[in-house]
Amino acid sequence: MPQNSPQGPDFFARQRTLLEQAVTATTCRDHWSPYPESPSKSVYGEDAAKLGEQAFREQIGKPFDLPGHPGEARVSPAERSPYGFPLGVTYPRLGPDAAVAAAKAAAPAWRDAGPDVRAGVAAEILSRLNAASFEIAHAVQHTTGQAFVMAFQAGGPHAQDRGLEAVAYAWAEQKRHPSTARWSKPQRKGGPLVMDKRFTPVGRGVSLLIACNTFPTWNGYPGLFASLVTGNPVVVKPHAGAVLPLAITVRVAREVLAEAGFDPNLVLLAAEEPGERTAGALALHPDVRIIDFTGSTEFGDWLEANANQAVVYTEKAGLNTVVLDSTDDYRGLLSNLAFSLSLYSGQMCTTPQNLFVPRAGIATDQGVRTADEFAADLAAALDKLLADPARAAGTLGAVVNDGVRERLALAADVGHTVRASTRIKHPEHPEADVRTPLVAQLDAETDRDAYTREWFGPVSFVIGTDSTEHSLGIFRETVRRHGALTAAVHSTSEAVLATAEEAALDAGVHLSENLTGGVFVNQSAAFSDFHGSAANPAASATLSDPAFVTGRFATLQSRRPVIAEEPAHA
Amino acid sequence: MPQNSPQGPDFFARQRTLLEQAVTATTCRDHWSPYPESPSKSVYGEDAAKLGEQAFREQIGKPFDLPGHPGEARVSPAERSPYGFPLGVTYPRLGPDAAVAAAKAAAPAWRDAGPDVRAGVAAEILSRLNAASFEIAHAVQHTTGQAFVMAFQAGGPHAQDRGLEAVAYAWAEQKRHPSTARWSKPQRKGGPLVMDKRFTPVGRGVSLLIACNTFPTWNGYPGLFASLVTGNPVVVKPHAGAVLPLAITVRVAREVLAEAGFDPNLVLLAAEEPGERTAGALALHPDVRIIDFTGSTEFGDWLEANANQAVVYTEKAGLNTVVLDSTDDYRGLLSNLAFSLSLYSGQMCTTPQNLFVPRAGIATDQGVRTADEFAADLAAALDKLLADPARAAGTLGAVVNDGVRERLALAADVGHTVRASTRIKHPEHPEADVRTPLVAQLDAETDRDAYTREWFGPVSFVIGTDSTEHSLGIFRETVRRHGALTAAVHSTSEAVLATAEEAALDAGVHLSENLTGGVFVNQSAAFSDFHGSAANPAASATLSDPAFVTGRFATLQSRRPVIAEEPAHA
Repeated sequence: MPQNSPQGPDFFARQRTLLEQAVTATTCRDHWSPYPESPSKSVYGEDAAKLGEQAFREQIGKPFDLPGHPGEARVSPAERSPYGFPLGVTYPRLGPDAAVAAAKAAAPAWRDAGPDVRAGVAAEILSRLNAASFEIAHAVQHTTGQAFVMAFQAGGPHAQDRGLEAVAYAWAEQKRHPSTARWSKPQRKGGPLVMDKRFTPVGRGVSLLIACNTFPTWNGYPGLFASLVTGNPVVVKPHAGAVLPLAITVRVAREVLAEAGFDPNLVLLAAEEPGERTAGALALHPDVRIIDFTGSTEFGDWLEANANQAVVYTEKAGLNTVVLDSTDDYRGLLSNLAFSLSLYSGQMCTTPQNLFVPRAGIATDQGVRTADEFAADLAAALDKLLADPARAAGTLGAVVNDGVRERLALAADVGHTVRASTRIKHPEHPEADVRTPLVAQLDAETDRDAYTREWFGPVSFVIGTDSTEHSLGIFRETVRRHGALTAAVHSTSEAVLATAEEAALDAGVHLSENLTGGVFVNQSAAFSDFHGSAANPAASATLSDPAFVTGRFATLQSRRPVIAEEPAHA
Repeated sequence: MPQNSPQGPDFFARQRTLLEQAVTATTCRDHWSPYPESPSKSVYGEDAAKLGEQAFREQIGKPFDLPGHPGEARVSPAERSPYGFPLGVTYPRLGPDAAVAAAKAAAPAWRDAGPDVRAGVAAEILSRLNAASFEIAHAVQHTTGQAFVMAFQAGGPHAQDRGLEAVAYAWAEQKRHPSTARWSKPQRKGGPLVMDKRFTPVGRGVSLLIACNTFPTWNGYPGLFASLVTGNPVVVKPHAGAVLPLAITVRVAREVLAEAGFDPNLVLLAAEEPGERTAGALALHPDVRIIDFTGSTEFGDWLEANANQAVVYTEKAGLNTVVLDSTDDYRGLLSNLAFSLSLYSGQMCTTPQNLFVPRAGIATDQGVRTADEFAADLAAALDKLLADPARAAGTLGAVVNDGVRERLALAADVGHTVRASTRIKHPEHPEADVRTPLVAQLDAETDRDAYTREWFGPVSFVIGTDSTEHSLGIFRETVRRHGALTAAVHSTSEAVLATAEEAALDAGVHLSENLTGGVFVNQSAAFSDFHGSAANPAASATLSDPAFVTGRFATLQSRRPVIAEEPAHA
C-alpha cells in the first residue's frame, strides 16, 4: 500500500516532531501544550488580533465561502450573538444522502495514505487553526456567549490541544502493530512454515460529528480529528446556533486536505436551520459508522439506543457534585468555588451543581461553618467576585439560549434562594443577557427531586446532609444513576479523601480534591486530565484515551507464504 | 490504592516474564506460543494423557463439583457426545439476578488489586488450564464433535494462546497511562501550578460470556480473560450442548482466584438446559455491562440492537470466500483446499463456503482448468484425502447438532452436486455421525440466493463467474453485505493479488494468499493473525487487538494540589 500523499507538501515530515512530543505527553501526563493560551501580541504577532476580528466581521451577513463544497442551495441558521446582534451567515445546504455519498467518494485515497500521512495532515490543520485562533475566538464568543478571553482559550488553543491529543492517540494506536511482519513456525520435520504478513489500519466508515451550542470546537475537535486520522471522512453537523466556528474549522481542514492532494470532501459541513432534524437522519444512515455527540441526555440516549450501525461516543449531562467536609483554607475554597460557578455563567457541562454540606457544618480555619453559614458565605464570595461589572463580564457569559433563561426562572422557586441570579450590564454589549449564579439551599432528604435533575446554567444548590458519610453516599448513588462530568471534595482528613476517592471510583467520575487556588474543577488540561468517562451515564467516552480511538478503525491483515529460495551454490 | 493480592502467592511475580513476552509478541507478530500444541508425552509428561482422560471419564453422569459456587438446584443440560454417548453431567443452577449479585459482590477487591495482580492471576489460570489440556480435550471432543487432536489443540493450547493474547492486550492497555503523575504548569507571575494526579483503571461492570457449541474455549477465552484482567467479574453462559469444557475452565479459575485471596465468584457458571433463555435475560440485565458472544447472526444482531447498556463483542457468521485466478501449484492448491473443507467436517466459522472460479477456467501448472474441471478436481482431492476412514476420522468431525444435518440435506438439492456428503465409519466410535464435505457447482448469476446465505457445516460451492474481476466484484459486495471471517485468493499475478488485497480492505476481511502448503485459511495463529474484524458484518470485534479490551474499563483520575514546601533554611 502506498504510504504517502498523492502530491503536495510533506506535512508529516513537518509535523513529526510535534506528533512524537504529543504521544509522549499522553503517557507522561505532565503539563504540555504546543498552542499558547495567551492571546497576546508577543505570542500571536502584532496584527493577529486585529486581523482575526476583521476576518470575523467580514463574514457577517454573507454566504460562507467553502470552495468546492457540495450543496446546491443555502442554509440560513439565523445565528445570533448572545451579545446582541445577528450574524446572518449562510452555508451550503447538504442533505444526508449527498453528504454521505461525497464523504464515501473521498475515502479510498485517504485509507491508502496510511496513518503517518493522515496524522501529518491533521497536525497541519491544527497548526493553521491555531493561527486562526482570533477569528475563531470571535466566532465562538458570538455564537456561545462566552467572554472573549474564554472564547479564545477554550475555543482556540485548548480546543486545539484536545484535537492534537486525539491525533496523538489515533496515530499511536494505528502503529501499535507493524505494517509488515514475517512469521516463521518451526516444524518437527523439514524447514519452518514461513509467511509474510501485512497489517493495514482501515477506517470504519463515514463519521458524523454532532456538535453543541456552547463548546463547538472544544467538544468537537476530539471526535473530528480522531476519526480523520483513523482513516474516516467526517460530516460535521453543527448546532444551528453555533455553525460559524465549525464552518471556519471545515474551511481550514479542506484547504489543507486539498493542498496535500486529497479530496477536500473528507471534511464536510452539514449545517441546518433551527428545527431541522438533520442529526437524526444522518445518525441512522446505514453508511454512517461513527458518531460523536455532545448535547442533551435525551438525544444522546436516543443515539446510543438507535444508531446501532455506528459506534457512538456521547457526552451528555449529569449532576456535577462537590462534597464539603473540612478545609484549612476556607477563603481559598470560597473564592475557587465562586469562580467555578461564575465562569461562563455556569453554562459548562462541568459546572458544579450539587454542593453537599453537613447541616451541622464543616470545620474550617475560620471555625465551624454550618450549612446555612456556608451558603451565605458562598453568596458573599460570589457578590465580591462579581462586584465590578466590567471585571464580572470577563468571567461570566451571555445566556446562550432560552432554555437557560427558563431554568433560571424555575430555579427561583426551588428551595430557599440564598443568592438570586442578577443581570449585569456588559460594558461593551449593553444588550447582552449576562447573568450571575443563583444559589439555592436545599435539604438532602426533602428536596431530592430538585437536585437529582440537571439544571444546566448558573444554578447551584447547597444541600444539607446528616454528615460527610451521608454526603458521600448520596454522591455515589446519584452519580452512578444520573451521571456527572466532574466531582470535587474538600477535606483536611486523609481518611475522608481516601473514602471520597473510593466513592468516585464507585460512581465512575474523575475527582478534584481541595481546589483552593488557580486550578478549577470545571477545567481539564489536555494531555494530563481526562474529561468524561463511560463509567457513569453522563458520557460514553473519555476525551481522550485509547478507547476513544480504537473503535474507529480495524487492522486488516493479509498473509502469503514465503517461497523458500534456492540454496546458493558455492 | 493497594496494588497487591489480599493474600496468597505472588502470581504476578511468577508470571511476569511470560506476560512481558506475550506483550512483545503482540507487537512483533512472529510465531510465538508458550503452550505446546503437541499432545505428546515428551511435552506434557508420561501420565498426562491417561490422567486427563480419567478426569474426564470420572465426571460422566455426576454433578460437576464447583466448591462454593452459588446455586441451589442443579441444571441437567443433557450434553451428549457427538461420538455417541450421553455425558449426563449436572451443574449448579444460577439465575440471572443471583449471578449478577454474586458477581458484583466479588468485584471491589478485584478492582483495588490493580492490573498487575489481575494479569498475574489470569496467567496463572491459563498455566493451570494448560496442565489440564488433556481433560479439556476430551470434554471438547465429546461436546463439539471435534477429532481428538483438534480438540486438544484448538480447545487446549491454541485457546490458551488466545486467552493469553487477550491478557497481554488487557494488561498493556491498562498500563498505557502511569498510575500517578505530577503536573506543573508555569505561571506568568509566581511559582507554577502543581497538581498530583492518580489514574486508576476501573472495570465497566459485570461481564457476560455467551459461548458457542463448536469452540467453547477457543472463542470463549479471549472475552473471559480480557474482562477479568480489566477488573470485571465474568458470568460464563455456555451453550447447553457444550458446558463441560467451560465448567472445567470455571473450576480452575475459581481455584486460582481463591488461592490468591479473592472471591471465587469473580468467575461464575450460568449453565442452562436446552430451550432455556438465560442468555437473553442475562444480556438485558441493567448491571451486565460487557457481553462477549459467539454464535448465530440472528442472536448476535439481536444483542447488538437490544443490549444497549453493554458493550457487545460478537462473532457471528458470514460467507467465507475463495477467489481462484491462477496458480503455479495446482496440486498444492487442491490438497490445501480439500483439507480446509474437511477439517472438523466444515463446522468452523472459518471454513470456506464460496469458491469463485471463472467459467472459462484458471491457469495452472497443469494447464487451464475450467470451472467444471476444477470442481471435479476438488472432488477428487477430497476423495483422496478422505479415502482411508481411520485417517479421515482424524481430520473430519462428528456432526455437532441437527442444524448441520438439516442444512446438509437441503444442500443436496442446491445447484449441481459435484461431490455428495458421505458418512464415514469412525473406527473407535461407530455411532458417530462423521460426514465428508458436499461440493455443489453453482453459477454466479443464477444461484445468487443460494450462495449469499451461510451454510454452516460441510457445504461448499464452486461458483462459475465471468472472470476474476467478476469474482472479486462479487467477493467485495457479498462480504460487505453479509460478512465473512476468512477470505483467500490464488493467483500468480502480482497485479491480481494487489487488486484482491484492495478488495479485501473494501470488504473488511482478512485475506490469505496462495495457500498450498501447511498453513490453512481456517486457522489463525494467536499473537500473529487477527481473527475476525468489526469491518464487516460477521463480527463486531477482532481476537484480539486493543479495541477488544479498551471498552472494558475506564481510567478514572483524581487530582490534588501540591502544597509548596517551606523553603529550607541555611
